[in-house]
Amino acid sequence: MEFSAEAKASILVDALPYIQNFYGETIVIKYGGNAMINDDLKNKVMHDLVLMKYVGIRPIIVHGGGPDITSFLEKVGKTSTFVNGLRVTDRETAQIAEMVLVGKINSEIVSRLNSLNLKAVGLSGKDANLIVASKKYAAVKNADNTITNTDIGFVGEVKNINTALLYDLLDQNYVPVISPIGIGEDGNSYNINADYVAAEIAGAMSAKKMLLLTDIEGIYRDYNDKSTFISTLSKKEAEAMIADGSINGGMIPKVEACLRSLEKGAGKTSIIDGRQAHSLILELFTSQGIGTEVVHSN
Amino acid sequence: MEFSAEAKASILVDALPYIQNFYGETIVIKYGGNAMINDDLKNKVMHDLVLMKYVGIRPIIVHGGGPDITSFLEKVGKTSTFVNGLRVTDRETAQIAEMVLVGKINSEIVSRLNSLNLKAVGLSGKDANLIVASKKYAAVKNADNTITNTDIGFVGEVKNINTALLYDLLDQNYVPVISPIGIGEDGNSYNINADYVAAEIAGAMSAKKMLLLTDIEGIYRDYNDKSTFISTLSKKEAEAMIADGSINGGMIPKVEACLRSLEKGAGKTSIIDGRQAHSLILELFTSQGIGTEVVHSN
Amino acid sequence: MEFSAEAKASILVDALPYIQNFYGETIVIKYGGNAMINDDLKNKVMHDLVLMKYVGIRPIIVHGGGPDITSFLEKVGKTSTFVNGLRVTDRETAQIAEMVLVGKINSEIVSRLNSLNLKAVGLSGKDANLIVASKKYAAVKNADNTITNTDIGFVGEVKNINTALLYDLLDQNYVPVISPIGIGEDGNSYNINADYVAAEIAGAMSAKKMLLLTDIEGIYRDYNDKSTFISTLSKKEAEAMIADGSINGGMIPKVEACLRSLEKGAGKTSIIDGRQAHSLILELFTSQGIGTEVVHSN
Amino acid sequence: MEFSAEAKASILVDALPYIQNFYGETIVIKYGGNAMINDDLKNKVMHDLVLMKYVGIRPIIVHGGGPDITSFLEKVGKTSTFVNGLRVTDRETAQIAEMVLVGKINSEIVSRLNSLNLKAVGLSGKDANLIVASKKYAAVKNADNTITNTDIGFVGEVKNINTALLYDLLDQNYVPVISPIGIGEDGNSYNINADYVAAEIAGAMSAKKMLLLTDIEGIYRDYNDKSTFISTLSKKEAEAMIADGSINGGMIPKVEACLRSLEKGAGKTSIIDGRQAHSLILELFTSQGIGTEVVHSN
Amino acid sequence: MEFSAEAKASILVDALPYIQNFYGETIVIKYGGNAMINDDLKNKVMHDLVLMKYVGIRPIIVHGGGPDITSFLEKVGKTSTFVNGLRVTDRETAQIAEMVLVGKINSEIVSRLNSLNLKAVGLSGKDANLIVASKKYAAVKNADNTITNTDIGFVGEVKNINTALLYDLLDQNYVPVISPIGIGEDGNSYNINADYVAAEIAGAMSAKKMLLLTDIEGIYRDYNDKSTFISTLSKKEAEAMIADGSINGGMIPKVEACLRSLEKGAGKTSIIDGRQAHSLILELFTSQGIGTEVVHSN
Amino acid sequence: MEFSAEAKASILVDALPYIQNFYGETIVIKYGGNAMINDDLKNKVMHDLVLMKYVGIRPIIVHGGGPDITSFLEKVGKTSTFVNGLRVTDRETAQIAEMVLVGKINSEIVSRLNSLNLKAVGLSGKDANLIVASKKYAAVKNADNTITNTDIGFVGEVKNINTALLYDLLDQNYVPVISPIGIGEDGNSYNINADYVAAEIAGAMSAKKMLLLTDIEGIYRDYNDKSTFISTLSKKEAEAMIADGSINGGMIPKVEACLRSLEKGAGKTSIIDGRQAHSLILELFTSQGIGTEVVHSN
Repeated sequence: MEFSAEAKASILVDALPYIQNFYGETIVIKYGGNAMINDDLKNKVMHDLVLMKYVGIRPIIVHGGGPDITSFLEKVGKTSTFVNGLRVTDRETAQIAEMVLVGKINSEIVSRLNSLNLKAVGLSGKDANLIVASKKYAAVKNADNTITNTDIGFVGEVKNINTALLYDLLDQNYVPVISPIGIGEDGNSYNINADYVAAEIAGAMSAKKMLLLTDIEGIYRDYNDKSTFISTLSKKEAEAMIADGSINGGMIPKVEACLRSLEKGAGKTSIIDGRQAHSLILELFTSQGIGTEVVHSN
Repeated sequence: MEFSAEAKASILVDALPYIQNFYGETIVIKYGGNAMINDDLKNKVMHDLVLMKYVGIRPIIVHGGGPDITSFLEKVGKTSTFVNGLRVTDRETAQIAEMVLVGKINSEIVSRLNSLNLKAVGLSGKDANLIVASKKYAAVKNADNTITNTDIGFVGEVKNINTALLYDLLDQNYVPVISPIGIGEDGNSYNINADYVAAEIAGAMSAKKMLLLTDIEGIYRDYNDKSTFISTLSKKEAEAMIADGSINGGMIPKVEACLRSLEKGAGKTSIIDGRQAHSLILELFTSQGIGTEVVHSN
Repeated sequence: MEFSAEAKASILVDALPYIQNFYGETIVIKYGGNAMINDDLKNKVMHDLVLMKYVGIRPIIVHGGGPDITSFLEKVGKTSTFVNGLRVTDRETAQIAEMVLVGKINSEIVSRLNSLNLKAVGLSGKDANLIVASKKYAAVKNADNTITNTDIGFVGEVKNINTALLYDLLDQNYVPVISPIGIGEDGNSYNINADYVAAEIAGAMSAKKMLLLTDIEGIYRDYNDKSTFISTLSKKEAEAMIADGSINGGMIPKVEACLRSLEKGAGKTSIIDGRQAHSLILELFTSQGIGTEVVHSN
Repeated sequence: MEFSAEAKASILVDALPYIQNFYGETIVIKYGGNAMINDDLKNKVMHDLVLMKYVGIRPIIVHGGGPDITSFLEKVGKTSTFVNGLRVTDRETAQIAEMVLVGKINSEIVSRLNSLNLKAVGLSGKDANLIVASKKYAAVKNADNTITNTDIGFVGEVKNINTALLYDLLDQNYVPVISPIGIGEDGNSYNINADYVAAEIAGAMSAKKMLLLTDIEGIYRDYNDKSTFISTLSKKEAEAMIADGSINGGMIPKVEACLRSLEKGAGKTSIIDGRQAHSLILELFTSQGIGTEVVHSN
Repeated sequence: MEFSAEAKASILVDALPYIQNFYGETIVIKYGGNAMINDDLKNKVMHDLVLMKYVGIRPIIVHGGGPDITSFLEKVGKTSTFVNGLRVTDRETAQIAEMVLVGKINSEIVSRLNSLNLKAVGLSGKDANLIVASKKYAAVKNADNTITNTDIGFVGEVKNINTALLYDLLDQNYVPVISPIGIGEDGNSYNINADYVAAEIAGAMSAKKMLLLTDIEGIYRDYNDKSTFISTLSKKEAEAMIADGSINGGMIPKVEACLRSLEKGAGKTSIIDGRQAHSLILELFTSQGIGTEVVHSN
Repeated sequence: MEFSAEAKASILVDALPYIQNFYGETIVIKYGGNAMINDDLKNKVMHDLVLMKYVGIRPIIVHGGGPDITSFLEKVGKTSTFVNGLRVTDRETAQIAEMVLVGKINSEIVSRLNSLNLKAVGLSGKDANLIVASKKYAAVKNADNTITNTDIGFVGEVKNINTALLYDLLDQNYVPVISPIGIGEDGNSYNINADYVAAEIAGAMSAKKMLLLTDIEGIYRDYNDKSTFISTLSKKEAEAMIADGSINGGMIPKVEACLRSLEKGAGKTSIIDGRQAHSLILELFTSQGIGTEVVHSN
């Protein structure tokens, strides 16, 4: 479709109030799912990030692992067992995951952004102790309904974010791209869920917004009735919907990451559909927005 | 006309290379003509300027006088005489022109921009001796074809631009709005043609581009044949077209202002049609561009 | 009168403690009255301001309107009506006042100061929204002694001072010269009494001193007895003298401006006689001082 | 062995002239060989680097690959072919090498240094386009003694070093740890010999010294006669010894890296024996030094 | 004794945790006693100070008077009387003491340090009013056990430390060397005990440590039993030992200086034996330490 | 004599062009002679210096020795011999001179200035190696008219000025007061003629002016005819007058110091009469000026 010059100009000007709103602000993007697999989507996300930077936003990207880790474990003949859906991560598994995250996925994002004239810098949580992790146990429910905290290896959760390196880089106009690897106080590397890493970083940096790129449209009041799509959800409402089971399954950790980010200091959070082309731009710079915002209060 | 979210997003992203090109650069805009009279156009120019600022451009606005000066002179019962098309400007006329330019036109532009959350600051050439002027004489052709330089009062030309105030303001994110009044070394105020003021300031500031907002489409090789519109003109070509008379009449000073600006240090110049809505955005951020660029070389 | 070199040297050195006292401090000067009309006085005020700047003071000048506004209204055949002594200011009147203040009076002060090698910059309250105004009503006393707030058009009072532009200019060694025009939140321009503008700016800038240049010697305890001249008046005393009527007539707004300035943060205020040559220097740098100081307490 | 307090103090003070010599200077260390394999040596290198930082040196570490790459290629069942001793590097091999270098070796160095209270940050040549690479061909000698430049895949050489990121990090007291991966102008990753990367970075940063940690004592005039060990070698002498074959085999690229570094701007270079405990400290801070210095001239 | 290179390297690395502990910290050294007389010790103190500076410490030196003052007074035929062990200091005595301290002792320290490539700057308490003094009286016990405060002339105690000059110099990497002369509010110079000057400066600068170089090993619980040497003493313990007389004689003012320094803001204090070669380095950078630390609490 | 307020004000304003001329400039004052002995003159010089600082000048004071050195040498029973009018300066003499200069004279100037609210800091040429000296020999004319360079001990001349400390102090608004002691590359202290020290410092600092306070009115073309007083002398003229003997005796070194200062970079120099009250102010801030200026050219 071709647009008239006038149409283009007016669309650019219509974006102005949104641009002004985010000018100079930090936004944390969790990049994952389809948008990290499909080459056309990948390309569009990169352009979206560059545009964000050029209209005055300070973006921080946290990426997930995608299918590469699994395929690499297979390649070296490593089979995984799972507890409560969490992969039991022995030292070798942890090492391979780190290599894939830092040496392949992060590296590719960085070089794509740099080819578009950003100054992207890849980081893991080990750099200047950016992400301090503690060991996470799987809470396994026993037959008698008691809970046993089960050791599943080098899986961690965020204990602390050391923000100095991020401020130093942002102030010099670099764009940080972060792998979700934490450094334990025991000196070990820990794999951490990327949604939570993004949430904690957005909180610690007092980000104006955290955006979780997912493979769903957002949250429905009733998942089977598309007309019940929710544009904005308060913390209180989200907590109630988790409690009454209307938010469930894989959606729970996404919403919990949003809640955590708000608690730690983020301004707003959004779960958006990364399968949609230019989803970041749509969410930030158009009146429609997309996805579901989880906010402090309505 | 309503656009889909996807259309909007892709138009925004298409603007990216243009935004990158002008990022951090100074652009001088001569604001005048219809775009300063028609209220809808006025409003759109203001939004264009705000957008330019938010995508990283450092805009400087130089405005002209428009019909306000003439109507004010009439109001006080002052009639003007003209020599070679230049208004003979006695002290009272000069004073009234300055009052209209500085106290009415400049003032209105500043408050409109500020209402859109820019930090605009109105200046005249007297502030910190920004524009040093020298007296300009009208070159009157006598019957015997000799030229007499005729005194026409307080009409000036730019002798020197003191750029320090502009750099100080731009570095603090202010947007300067400049009235074309110069200060003579004799202490008198001089009215100066705004196109030339814009040209000299763009040169002195090494602006990436100077944009002259006019009431014409641009330059035609043959004015009667609309198919001969010229998108880009080199200095050499422009000089040739003035010499052979294909650029003539009121277009000569516009083109001369462009040539002067290039000589003094501007990167590019454009004569654009201010009657077109969002002409600044169209020229800067779309592939079509509008108007005629006058550049160092093709 | 000619002085010996020794006399000159000792007078310069005697000024030292006063110079030390004001070094690095902001002083706001309300410039108006005779000192703005008489050409010799004008010239001396300019030299006083330059000297103040060179001995380390950061001066800010707020000027009034003087007779120029009235004479210009006459010139365009505009007659004014008054309510409670306040000019009813329709849009055209407001526009002409702004043109005279900004485009003539301010402009002349700026160029005079610059010719003496200061870096003066003219401002109105619209620049970077320096002076935010709200509409002021005339309090008309009815026959039954009730008060009616009467709309007198575009007459304003100071709602807020945005000091950032002043700090940015002072820190770069510019001297701001300010016209008493405010910008309303409704987007309209408002004329404001210059004494009050000076008072509010002195307060907002925590000025060491505000100086009101007037056409009177200062305050007398008994106006008919010249021996009752008051050199220093505390806030409390001034309030009492207004309450008991010993300060009255045109002196009331002067003293109220001083009181307002002290409340908003100024260190001291002075009402001085601008008809006296070099009144600013006398007040600041000699043991005699001149005029009446209004201070927080004795 | 236990030392008296006096002995300790005097050794510390004896180091003073060496410390003064390197104070505030950049030193580039190529870390590789045994010092990267033996755990005790590893540990000592880390302490050496921390000491260097704390006595005012700005260290930059470039690491090599070691045996990890080969063992990982084996693990995924990838066999390598070699041309002229250079591994033919297809896309998968390049990817695995990058993962091992960036996601394992670099990552381990960074976390070891951070555990000793440095602020180490891992980088690859892709970060902010630090190392721009061009494709390197193997010069294969044909039967008829002609040379064919043979494509061996994603093996590169340094085309350009973008130093800005390094200066920004050093100025904020970070310690950069760099993997020898370059980014091609074609967007591909290239593996580069780490000695050359260290050499080019030392040159581009005008390093006071480049240190190549190797598994040899240094250079002998006659390798079979230990008494012919060379402490210092001028550029000219080194070139002569390569030409006459007295430097040969695996020593050639080491010495060529030194020569290249000197040409590009490094002050001095040293080939030192990483098998010796605390070799960095010995070389820098004691009168003995170790290894062979290659310098501009004697 | 000659050490192997390995021994040297390991001793340097062993100092690392101590170096890290003091990095960037201010340390105040009272320099006096034998270390200021014996030429070999003098030389070693100078080297110790240079080393301290180069490993990131910000040293401030306060020196005492030593025997030079007495010998100079003798040379000009001036005999002294003493009250309570304090020299009665008339104006001439005070002047001679100042000349010796500032013009001889301080000057010599400064030039020795500068010859070792420090940037030392000599100061007295008069420079920028660094040390403001008040008159100190000798408390003379009368026959009836009452106390008479006896005037002993220009002997002072510290009233206030103006730290700005020290911060300005330290921030520019200068090393201040301070003579214990204070300036009274009466304009007179006062001699002050150098231990107390060091104590007050260490407190005012929040020094990490104050070191008093003395001619004793430190504090013994029982002076006659060398086995009762005390390495660390809390404030509370020190106060108790003064009260019960186990600290007595010339040791009292040393310990009181330590206590005063802790109260005013120093982190730790140490009384060390300046007769020991390299005592500063031993105390700061080795596990043994020397002397007695007086600290806030154990 | 009492002056009217108006007279005072006009004198202050008359100083304005002089104040503007020196604003922000460095001026070096050689302080010596009567102005350093007579208490009233002393006091007036101090006030002059403070005034200079407060009107924006960056003063640097270099003081001479005056009679104090001689009287102190006498006090310790030291008799001096002279060669060519230069005191033979053995180590003890040099030490005493340094003590008097640094510990008495400098110290008194510093405390007087500080009591007037300047931030004066005393320096000798040893501080941060400010004045590097070389040994000066007396050129003794032998009977046969040959010259023998005779060793007269620790008398020096300026070899180099290290300006960094002066810039650091001036930029922080300190006023340096400098004793004419140099540090030799041999580590010895050297006494240097203060006029030459002032000259070299003024040159090295590119001072706008050097002022030599002396006990003469200035230079006469014919010393016996007071009407031949010279206000301004060019370098060329001064050199000619030395050559032809019209400048002779004690005036030669004064004029040579001026010439040296001009050569090394000072703008202007003046020999002024320190016996005149407020001579500095008279010279700098009045139309009369005093003394003789020696300048590059007329």
